[in-house]
Amino acid sequence: MRLNPVDPAFVDRLRAVLPDPAFRETSPAYLEEPRGRWRGQAGVVVAPGSTEEVAGVIKQAFEARVPVVPYGGGTGLVGGQIAPDGPAPVLLSLERMTRVRGVYPEENVMVVEAGAILSDIHDVAEETGHLFPLSIAAKGSARIGGILSTNAGGVNVLRYGNARDLCLGLEAVLPDGQIWHGLMRLRKDNTGYDLRNLLIGAEGTLGVITAATLKVVQRPAQEGTALMSVPGPAAALRLLAMARTQMGDGVSAFELIHRQGLNFLAETVPDIRQPFENPTEWTVLIDLGLPRGMTPDDALETLFGEAMEAGLVSDGLIAQSQAQRQAFWDVREHIPVANKRIGAISSHDISVPLGMIAEFIEAGRSVIAGIGDFRINCFGHLGDGNLHYNVFPQSGKTREDHVDQRDRIKCAVHDLVHRMGGSVSAEHGIGRLKVDDLERYGDPAKLSAMRAIKAALDPAGIMNPGAVLRILD
Amino acid sequence: MRLNPVDPAFVDRLRAVLPDPAFRETSPAYLEEPRGRWRGQAGVVVAPGSTEEVAGVIKQAFEARVPVVPYGGGTGLVGGQIAPDGPAPVLLSLERMTRVRGVYPEENVMVVEAGAILSDIHDVAEETGHLFPLSIAAKGSARIGGILSTNAGGVNVLRYGNARDLCLGLEAVLPDGQIWHGLMRLRKDNTGYDLRNLLIGAEGTLGVITAATLKVVQRPAQEGTALMSVPGPAAALRLLAMARTQMGDGVSAFELIHRQGLNFLAETVPDIRQPFENPTEWTVLIDLGLPRGMTPDDALETLFGEAMEAGLVSDGLIAQSQAQRQAFWDVREHIPVANKRIGAISSHDISVPLGMIAEFIEAGRSVIAGIGDFRINCFGHLGDGNLHYNVFPQSGKTREDHVDQRDRIKCAVHDLVHRMGGSVSAEHGIGRLKVDDLERYGDPAKLSAMRAIKAALDPAGIMNPGAVLRILD
Repeated sequence: MRLNPVDPAFVDRLRAVLPDPAFRETSPAYLEEPRGRWRGQAGVVVAPGSTEEVAGVIKQAFEARVPVVPYGGGTGLVGGQIAPDGPAPVLLSLERMTRVRGVYPEENVMVVEAGAILSDIHDVAEETGHLFPLSIAAKGSARIGGILSTNAGGVNVLRYGNARDLCLGLEAVLPDGQIWHGLMRLRKDNTGYDLRNLLIGAEGTLGVITAATLKVVQRPAQEGTALMSVPGPAAALRLLAMARTQMGDGVSAFELIHRQGLNFLAETVPDIRQPFENPTEWTVLIDLGLPRGMTPDDALETLFGEAMEAGLVSDGLIAQSQAQRQAFWDVREHIPVANKRIGAISSHDISVPLGMIAEFIEAGRSVIAGIGDFRINCFGHLGDGNLHYNVFPQSGKTREDHVDQRDRIKCAVHDLVHRMGGSVSAEHGIGRLKVDDLERYGDPAKLSAMRAIKAALDPAGIMNPGAVLRILD
Repeated sequence: MRLNPVDPAFVDRLRAVLPDPAFRETSPAYLEEPRGRWRGQAGVVVAPGSTEEVAGVIKQAFEARVPVVPYGGGTGLVGGQIAPDGPAPVLLSLERMTRVRGVYPEENVMVVEAGAILSDIHDVAEETGHLFPLSIAAKGSARIGGILSTNAGGVNVLRYGNARDLCLGLEAVLPDGQIWHGLMRLRKDNTGYDLRNLLIGAEGTLGVITAATLKVVQRPAQEGTALMSVPGPAAALRLLAMARTQMGDGVSAFELIHRQGLNFLAETVPDIRQPFENPTEWTVLIDLGLPRGMTPDDALETLFGEAMEAGLVSDGLIAQSQAQRQAFWDVREHIPVANKRIGAISSHDISVPLGMIAEFIEAGRSVIAGIGDFRINCFGHLGDGNLHYNVFPQSGKTREDHVDQRDRIKCAVHDLVHRMGGSVSAEHGIGRLKVDDLERYGDPAKLSAMRAIKAALDPAGIMNPGAVLRILD
């Protein structure tokens, strides 16, 4: 299927369905992505103000066979928001659709438009004593439409699930311009195929999400945070099981930190205070959100005591104030910043079955050592089996010194993950970065079903072409 | 697309791919369904012993354009397991695929074949101190493949979600006979479209689920149960919010019971002991699963005290033993039995937004009164907004006296639900019973997307034809 680039005649057609404020300057920000791997192109940038206007754009694009790249906050890490080649597309930004359409505190529900920024959604939830528990580093600029389209994860997936689990309904424009009115506020609805979950995680290739019904939760009555030194990842997982026995679902986050990350922090973000003077190799950050009937301090002390006896921890710090909680979290949240400053040769967003984590980390070490002399920073969402496994040059060298080893490192890590029944994209998605990986590691039957679904819903192939699935001639 | 009935030549083709034990007698059980609305037909009944054999059957059916009806425990309430008309199909039973393929206690995961019976899965989870929290009345005969295919719900959805939320991965045979190997044990995997959730709830129309990776949870350290008299559904919802503030996610079930159900019980199942001598109109059953740090009795007493002060409850009973917990649950679980003995004119499995429940119940009363003089038993999963809303004849009359009013009642209830943004199938699915309802109330864009997906994945239309979507000529 041949697509056509945006040309002046097509822009004229868009002028018939969009008011002037919907046409934006093609500023550089629309054409960049955080990893700096690609530079995008856009024949025109439009920011519709309503779902009907989005539908108008898609209908025109469908008729004229012009590609459309949906654009949220531009924070995606796999290039799903960027069209580096092919016919110049319409870049469709949701930035003008940021309304909160409804808040239903007694239902633990809110309805927001796709352009709403995550931290604004947090604030709206807060106003009624609620919590929208999805939180990612890019929360200040990521928009909920993009977050849902990539099924984003973050630090609270352990307790509350990923974007998919926090969405009850969608409104979307399908690739032929039809509007799907699916903003249900229902906890249970078994009427037909699960179109909602099909669009979530489809990275804009099956339609444009324009609004979503989100689940919020009652904010836990009391919160607490601790850092604990653990002998290794396997002990950390046993510590998590122990915490759950004691506190049930009260464990909101359980993050693994490697000393390498703390060293990078000390080197590149020295204003972040390091909680342990001499950290052991592995540390976990535990975050609790407890009901009124339990006290975080007591719970963390009990946990620490029992874990000490069982040999699962060797040292620990329990935050004594809100400021200290934030300080502990600052450590975790600045590790990606430090990583960026050091400059990874290859970064991997992987998951393995929980029971394979320790083995994966061991095997990963020798696989990488077999390629060369590198530093590994392995950290992340341990309870989800989701690790960010990043490989860095030794001190004094830069990533540029190892450009030729990059693919070998990536392949070695991904091959290992795949052999262990893991995923080469745990939370970032496929985008354009991992199209090859999906073909290499993906199940053939699933891939052919994906292609059939794509062709059925987007027969003209206009929606974010080249993302997730390769364009076949 | 014309389909062909099973004929002797086709049975011969099946004999080439299936061993003798896979061929079953066409006993009446395969052709009945619990509501007694339809009688099925089958050209041949086969029960493959492996995924490869299932794939063999589907390949033959695909080539010969013969319909296939997948069959689990036969407990579905909407006729998804029954082919009352059309060319005689292959009835494909999963009853011989009941193996537990793996148990991973440290991962809170197990892998089971599609024919495993729910209560057997409960037992396997129990052996390692775990809980597979999905529980439905038909647990002694329902098979997990059917449970996933219909996205079944039940009493613990409030805390643990429905079937969809408890499944991490699937193995399935797609309508062209390809096997999808998707039995991941991962909490996070963003590699491509969500085929898992597409097959879950597709009621066998997009393929045959042959095995599943299931989430289990650590069994809560302590459990507790109470019955509380509430002034009405709105107060009950405020009681639930209060319980969650006090106990967090410790509330495992929160069921609404109407006095009508208790009266039916007294009339038809008199050996079930009624906990309250003079029950008020509305009762809730609260079930707790608490971590070691909290005591169910104390928690329930605190809740009751505060709720009493807030005017949310007027009476209450806290179970003092495991036997009494079971006795309370027996009341709730026998209400459907009592309903069946009384004989509903029309039964509805509906959901509405939580904030609309009280209004729905009020409005429902007058809508039904406008049609005639009936008894209503409205009960169910209040915290999910999921009510079973069943309409019965007055004492001395039978359902047969009202056959002519049945459709009018159903339409009136479903119209009301739809107007309130609700669902006409909250947990039972569409099957063959609600194909018309889906067309009447479903979103047109979603319906056309569903048709496109069905045609793309099952171009020959062999998979459970007539279920979910009408067969178009």
